Amino acid sequence: MASYTPPVADIAFLLEEVFDFDDLMQALPGYEDVNAELAVSVLDEGGKFCAGVLEPLNRPGDEEGCRLENGLVSTPKGIAEAYKAFVEAGWAGLSGDPEYGGQGLPRAVQILLDEMLSSANLSFGLFPGLTRGAAEAIAHHASPELKATYLPKMISGEWTGAMALTEASAGTDLGLLTTKAEPVGDGSYRIKGTKIFISSGDQDFGGNIVHLILARLPDAPKGVKGISLFLAPKFLLREDGSLGARNGMSVGALEHKMGIHAQPTCVMNYDGAIGWLVGEPGRGLNAMFTMMNAERLFVGIQGLGIAEAATQKATGYARERLQGRSPDGSRGPVAIIEHPDVRKMLLTGRSISDACRALAIWTAMQMDISARHPDAAVRREADELVALLTPVVKAAFTDFGFETAVTSQQVFGGHGYIREWGMEQFVRDARITQIYEGTNGVQAMDLVSRKLPMADGAVASRFFSIIRHDLQAAAQTPAARAIAEASEQALGRLERTTQSLLAARDEPTAAGAAATDYLRLFALVSCGWMWARMAEKAAVGDTPLHRRKLAAARFFAERVLPQAIGLEAALANGPGSLMELEADLF
Amino acid sequence: MASYTPPVADIAFLLEEVFDFDDLMQALPGYEDVNAELAVSVLDEGGKFCAGVLEPLNRPGDEEGCRLENGLVSTPKGIAEAYKAFVEAGWAGLSGDPEYGGQGLPRAVQILLDEMLSSANLSFGLFPGLTRGAAEAIAHHASPELKATYLPKMISGEWTGAMALTEASAGTDLGLLTTKAEPVGDGSYRIKGTKIFISSGDQDFGGNIVHLILARLPDAPKGVKGISLFLAPKFLLREDGSLGARNGMSVGALEHKMGIHAQPTCVMNYDGAIGWLVGEPGRGLNAMFTMMNAERLFVGIQGLGIAEAATQKATGYARERLQGRSPDGSRGPVAIIEHPDVRKMLLTGRSISDACRALAIWTAMQMDISARHPDAAVRREADELVALLTPVVKAAFTDFGFETAVTSQQVFGGHGYIREWGMEQFVRDARITQIYEGTNGVQAMDLVSRKLPMADGAVASRFFSIIRHDLQAAAQTPAARAIAEASEQALGRLERTTQSLLAARDEPTAAGAAATDYLRLFALVSCGWMWARMAEKAAVGDTPLHRRKLAAARFFAERVLPQAIGLEAALANGPGSLMELEADLF
Repeated sequence: MASYTPPVADIAFLLEEVFDFDDLMQALPGYEDVNAELAVSVLDEGGKFCAGVLEPLNRPGDEEGCRLENGLVSTPKGIAEAYKAFVEAGWAGLSGDPEYGGQGLPRAVQILLDEMLSSANLSFGLFPGLTRGAAEAIAHHASPELKATYLPKMISGEWTGAMALTEASAGTDLGLLTTKAEPVGDGSYRIKGTKIFISSGDQDFGGNIVHLILARLPDAPKGVKGISLFLAPKFLLREDGSLGARNGMSVGALEHKMGIHAQPTCVMNYDGAIGWLVGEPGRGLNAMFTMMNAERLFVGIQGLGIAEAATQKATGYARERLQGRSPDGSRGPVAIIEHPDVRKMLLTGRSISDACRALAIWTAMQMDISARHPDAAVRREADELVALLTPVVKAAFTDFGFETAVTSQQVFGGHGYIREWGMEQFVRDARITQIYEGTNGVQAMDLVSRKLPMADGAVASRFFSIIRHDLQAAAQTPAARAIAEASEQALGRLERTTQSLLAARDEPTAAGAAATDYLRLFALVSCGWMWARMAEKAAVGDTPLHRRKLAAARFFAERVLPQAIGLEAALANGPGSLMELEADLF
Repeated sequence: MASYTPPVADIAFLLEEVFDFDDLMQALPGYEDVNAELAVSVLDEGGKFCAGVLEPLNRPGDEEGCRLENGLVSTPKGIAEAYKAFVEAGWAGLSGDPEYGGQGLPRAVQILLDEMLSSANLSFGLFPGLTRGAAEAIAHHASPELKATYLPKMISGEWTGAMALTEASAGTDLGLLTTKAEPVGDGSYRIKGTKIFISSGDQDFGGNIVHLILARLPDAPKGVKGISLFLAPKFLLREDGSLGARNGMSVGALEHKMGIHAQPTCVMNYDGAIGWLVGEPGRGLNAMFTMMNAERLFVGIQGLGIAEAATQKATGYARERLQGRSPDGSRGPVAIIEHPDVRKMLLTGRSISDACRALAIWTAMQMDISARHPDAAVRREADELVALLTPVVKAAFTDFGFETAVTSQQVFGGHGYIREWGMEQFVRDARITQIYEGTNGVQAMDLVSRKLPMADGAVASRFFSIIRHDLQAAAQTPAARAIAEASEQALGRLERTTQSLLAARDEPTAAGAAATDYLRLFALVSCGWMWARMAEKAAVGDTPLHRRKLAAARFFAERVLPQAIGLEAALANGPGSLMELEADLF
């Protein structure tokens, strides 16, 4: 059976041919030494680690799962050793701030490592991913002392991080949370409460675990304005910075989950854990969103990673499995990749994965611009585009990732349902990405009710103008004309729908009723845009890779993008059909 | 948490108000005593058994799974007792031939029991479902001696049945199978080979297990023409009909599966098992298809069962879970059923489940007509419609069932990913229905390459005429006009696409490239037709049920049916984009 091959050639095509990566890096202070050649070479090494060390642990880790015995969490065989090797090789600090020992590579490189981690072992990838998110929140909001104490070891990966938000009755609605933080008097707090669904809440890698916990100060107002953010380590630190006594927290249980079995998702009891405020009192949600936004992009990338890995395995199987006769009946048994419907399944996965990777890089480049560009106006514009695209990347990539896992499993027929082949694990693992870090429904609401109205719709308009400009340029290349024109038509549908939504801002149910379908329409247009850009460059070359890109672009234009027509029509019907029925009649 | 409520009121609405069930039964010799009142009363009792006995075993059975120890299969705690109670209550023989002790109720009643079985416990439902399929193949093709020996105990449910088709290298392509049958000389055969994925291949209920096995006679030609069907019981029978020695078969392993863990899916080794020919030599596939067609409808019903159960649980949760503020911001926390996007998820499931149930009943009524109507021409026409609809019911209902399970799981947010809530089990269980009894891709190929061309397209045309007639009638009722008109537009799309496909019959890849999208378009139109018929009748009443039907019909027309526009557009692009890329460039 085909094993995972890191898509380094596809990455090189994107960085070297499609995007002006080298020019961009030149324009960003601190990244002058970064270029596509360096990035590809780093990612080639990273890919070897993912394919060689992490992927072989993926299925055994799913079978074995995590255990909680006598209050101690054990991860499956090999995971702790792999994590140590990952840290020793320096992968944890790839994009970390050099001030704290990181290697300072741009986000556009980080997300490509994240993709490969997610392809190889989604459960594993959450450990460094959550640590990075927690470190970002600390870097942006914590005191200099907390930063100096915690960031170096988090950025090296020696210590891991966890985000403790959700409670049994407070999920999407964090305003309902009840965990308390009482001031001790020496600047620290005692935190009491129970959190659920805490990824990486504990591990057996050694080192410390830095918990960022949302809790309420005494007399805090109800709702989200009463929420503050606290940092509490698993082990309190001695004066010399070494690990001291256990802090007042324990793992109440491991959640019994559909998938990501090698990831210890914990019920965490904070029983008077000592912690320190991160950011200002009552501004916890704000600080947490620094982490959440980075995590949401990371979760989107997880969807891409699963889509890529599942498509690869299905393609390998379809080349080897002999069943049935060729379409013209002349030969048989033939490899099932000769059957049109199997090709349709494979091309669906391929056309989704490649487009999502391109859009992920484009978005990450905007993050790099927003962080480093010398011109404040350019930084702000990039930051707005990232804000606009964050819910789209999170929700659409994970929906596509799950759908691609399901389709790829289908290529295997009955064997796809059997655990040994690994395809059903992709489906179970991918499913969480649509749910955590804000369900995809919450992402869609974020897009329509907070992001679209930014600057009265001007941010979305600017994004659509960028797309139209690129599509009109791509249409000048004959081999890219069809995908460019199909995408421009779809863009028109998106723009008309956007205008209707903005015009209906006063109708309280209009946004919510449109949200999910609108986000999908937005994502399809964005993927079509990326295909037009890829086709434009692929038309220049004639390698197998270039031909594959052109074929996938055509497939996307002809067989995937037409969904946009139905979505526009459904959205034009408005919220009425959702709202008329009384709740007790459902 | 809400438990499963058998949809008896919805069934009564369909049988009593939407379909002329009583009139039809009057016209079918042998069913004169059957009417809607009787059917509803029987199904009300059956539903109590499903909800009271089988549903409570569903999650424990998933957790415990089946075991194979010392060659003996154990089903999870309670399953064997439940099976015995099921048989004792007479449910196994509900639609069985009275000549062999069955109760002789029509198929239209049987499938509604099957739906409730599937809602309550999919793993359990396979035991009686496969037994019935095997009994039908025996009834149609076996010798009078085999029928007399095996049918009474299979129809009572005392003995169960299994279908042994698939081998490791022969799945969709049964022509590749290698299991052998050697004549002993006394009319019996010795069967040697290994079969995989054998549902109900063994159990611990006591009684016998009747295996129907596809195998090759010596010197049989290669391919499907060399395949014959054999009956081999787990226990050979003594002269007096009691169970004697073990036959030469054993369970090699239990498959490790994504779901249906309470169902022992076996690797079966036939080591010289004594068996008897069913039907003529070389006509095994023909005999097996008698079983397969019945099973395919049953599998479609399984998809419906999961959709109904998952929608019910999601609806119950959405009424109870408090999160977030009302759309106008005035109240909070509110039950999440107030959020438009949650309503969209619930209505998607509801509009799919109700339409599929209606279409299932309509199809089953055609089966009853084809079996019993006094006029041979009427029987033949009904049989053709069943042949046309079989792949649609199998594939579309199971795709809808899986999608509805996923959407309903999403309503639960993070809790949906946790095993205790039972929603992820629906997803894992539903997934097999898209794969077994011919993958949904195979169903789609059956529709476009065998069923559409029947009588040069005349069967499909006749079906479309029936739909148009009903839609035009429904459009006379104001409350049904919108769904009727939307469905008629979608019907136009289906008819145009059908014409294009029939015109392209000489292009070898046209059918395969269209198959999956075409089947979905076909199913959406069929569901729209059913909604128009339901809305027409719902408009007459003003009960909560009638209002729910009208609201779901509107939702289906406005938010689901528009998919048909995109499907027509995608299909109009033809097979080119699927076929241009060489297999080694994927």
